[in-house]
Amino acid sequence: MDSISLSEVTVVRGTHLGFMHSFRQPFSGVTISPKFCFSKVEGARAISSSVSNTKSQYVYGESLAPTSDSGYYKMNGVNLKNRTLISSVKERLLLLDAYDDEYGGVVVDHGKLPSTPNAFALMLRNSLSDWKRKDKKGVWLKLPVEQSELVPIAIKEGFEYHHAEKRYVMLTYWIPEKEPCMLPANASHQVGVGGFVLNQHKEVLVVQEKYCTSTNTGLWKLPTGFINESEEIFSGAVREVKEETGVDTEFLEVIAFRHAHNVAFEKSDLFFICMLKPLSDKIIIDDLEIKAAKWMPLEEYVEQPMIRGDKMFKRVIEICEARLRHRYCGLSPHRLISSFDGRPSSLYYNVVDDDHDPSHSNCSTDFYE
Amino acid sequence: MDSISLSEVTVVRGTHLGFMHSFRQPFSGVTISPKFCFSKVEGARAISSSVSNTKSQYVYGESLAPTSDSGYYKMNGVNLKNRTLISSVKERLLLLDAYDDEYGGVVVDHGKLPSTPNAFALMLRNSLSDWKRKDKKGVWLKLPVEQSELVPIAIKEGFEYHHAEKRYVMLTYWIPEKEPCMLPANASHQVGVGGFVLNQHKEVLVVQEKYCTSTNTGLWKLPTGFINESEEIFSGAVREVKEETGVDTEFLEVIAFRHAHNVAFEKSDLFFICMLKPLSDKIIIDDLEIKAAKWMPLEEYVEQPMIRGDKMFKRVIEICEARLRHRYCGLSPHRLISSFDGRPSSLYYNVVDDDHDPSHSNCSTDFYE
Repeated sequence: MDSISLSEVTVVRGTHLGFMHSFRQPFSGVTISPKFCFSKVEGARAISSSVSNTKSQYVYGESLAPTSDSGYYKMNGVNLKNRTLISSVKERLLLLDAYDDEYGGVVVDHGKLPSTPNAFALMLRNSLSDWKRKDKKGVWLKLPVEQSELVPIAIKEGFEYHHAEKRYVMLTYWIPEKEPCMLPANASHQVGVGGFVLNQHKEVLVVQEKYCTSTNTGLWKLPTGFINESEEIFSGAVREVKEETGVDTEFLEVIAFRHAHNVAFEKSDLFFICMLKPLSDKIIIDDLEIKAAKWMPLEEYVEQPMIRGDKMFKRVIEICEARLRHRYCGLSPHRLISSFDGRPSSLYYNVVDDDHDPSHSNCSTDFYE
Repeated sequence: MDSISLSEVTVVRGTHLGFMHSFRQPFSGVTISPKFCFSKVEGARAISSSVSNTKSQYVYGESLAPTSDSGYYKMNGVNLKNRTLISSVKERLLLLDAYDDEYGGVVVDHGKLPSTPNAFALMLRNSLSDWKRKDKKGVWLKLPVEQSELVPIAIKEGFEYHHAEKRYVMLTYWIPEKEPCMLPANASHQVGVGGFVLNQHKEVLVVQEKYCTSTNTGLWKLPTGFINESEEIFSGAVREVKEETGVDTEFLEVIAFRHAHNVAFEKSDLFFICMLKPLSDKIIIDDLEIKAAKWMPLEEYVEQPMIRGDKMFKRVIEICEARLRHRYCGLSPHRLISSFDGRPSSLYYNVVDDDHDPSHSNCSTDFYE
């Protein structure tokens, strides 16, 4: 498989196998489980190799070190009979290594990029002509940070930024002039969690943050934070509470969530309000971001002007209180694997009310014992 | 305000005012409402201008056209009395235009970048030395697509990619060597929706997709898709159903959601399963991505081998059925503005059970009438 990662291969518009979203411009990332993916890669390779077995790296007037072990082709070593053959061989030689995706597009192999900007410029231009001639659709070009000098070259050829991570930038090019771009968009959301932790004395765990606007100075608030990469909501909430206050907790339920737009980097934000059961009470604060933390009587917390005057917070507290009286059902996570993608994931839902076992419901779970 | 957008100014680690997340590496985007933001920008400008009133663009041996209307400074025009003064003035001249953020970092003004790579290289190096001397923390450098030739220069100086959108790439540099990087991470999630639409004949609205794996060929599935930029979950679900099938619907509830990781571009995925009430029944399919759509008896839908054999789908159908019998409460959206950020947003929760008005509950809302 060389240096091509599975996720890269599957980054094409298409059905969302994770739970079967259909693609739909502009949002349509793809998830494909390894079992599907492998055959796809093989398929793509098979198609690709039938037309590019002799594809290699060669550039006029430049010493070009191949960036992978793939054998490369010496111009002088070819037995060229006539001018036509020369140009057809040349043409093939000067293409970027790429493979087809299953949506009519191509993925450039970032492990086999030419090592010099001039070589890249020439090969990219040739490849674009070739892809256009073949009626290709979307082109994916991942440029590793080590080859950032290729970025302006690709931009000059008409590529656009798609997304970037620490070690690379992904560029795309939509070839069909008369079709709307169907390439999937980048990640759209950040996800935060807030922990509502109440002890048996009806005291809620609150913090004061070091970095806050003047409006919020002195406000006692719930511990909150963003979930880490690939972290679960339930474990993110427990971790944040532990990090900020030192208190161990058990996740109970997502009781509500908030959806807001144009937040950091113009992205959207999903914030999950979680009820947690305290397992310890000793407070040890995180000096880096927390000024103070304490257990505060719920009434006192609610009476803070910033909370009392805020519709959103008032509603959240009402919900938490209703939950304590078993008058509200939040959603709890259940680990399930779907055979569609073989991917372990968490499905958040109420436990369905069950006549045979009335205790078998979120609402009936006691919050503190 | 020149070309600096509000969102750019606020892209710094810090409290999440939207619902007050605390920052926490690696996830800590920031949301600041315009009213906060404006004073911040003004503040940053005030600080910045006190040290850089004469800051301008000048580069040795290059004709340098200022990229904004800000007046620029001619070296020859300065009345320089001695060598020390020259070097101190020069030093100031050769810095990038930037302003402080409130977390000890700096934001380079992308509207005032020098227009040539050499000038940028020189000024970036000088600025980095200056910021290091001043114990600055995170540096934010947004490079518009029109100046992509500056990307490799910044990378060479030690910058890393942070994220990218169509028209720009954002790079960052964390200066403190002994402190862990506290810069917020990029967006982490894509968000999908699936619509469960049942009519009064207990038929569910299903589709067959054009692009699917061989395993799923012939499968009738719920209409699904990704939500658009800044789109609500409830409107995204209604739009997807309309686009794929032509059927008008009314959003009722999020009945469950699924959280999965390492999906497209190695990001995570949140998928919301929504119950929708049909308002029309005529089917007009979207030729681009849908092969067929129809109303299918619920029993028949459930009996499909791929659905019957899948724990995740089985559970989702159980939930939908429980919901129809008023034995399950989903979450419904309520538009609320929090005074913390003045941002209109949707809070999804059950309607709290109300003794005075028992109909005031999600569970009691009839699914079809």
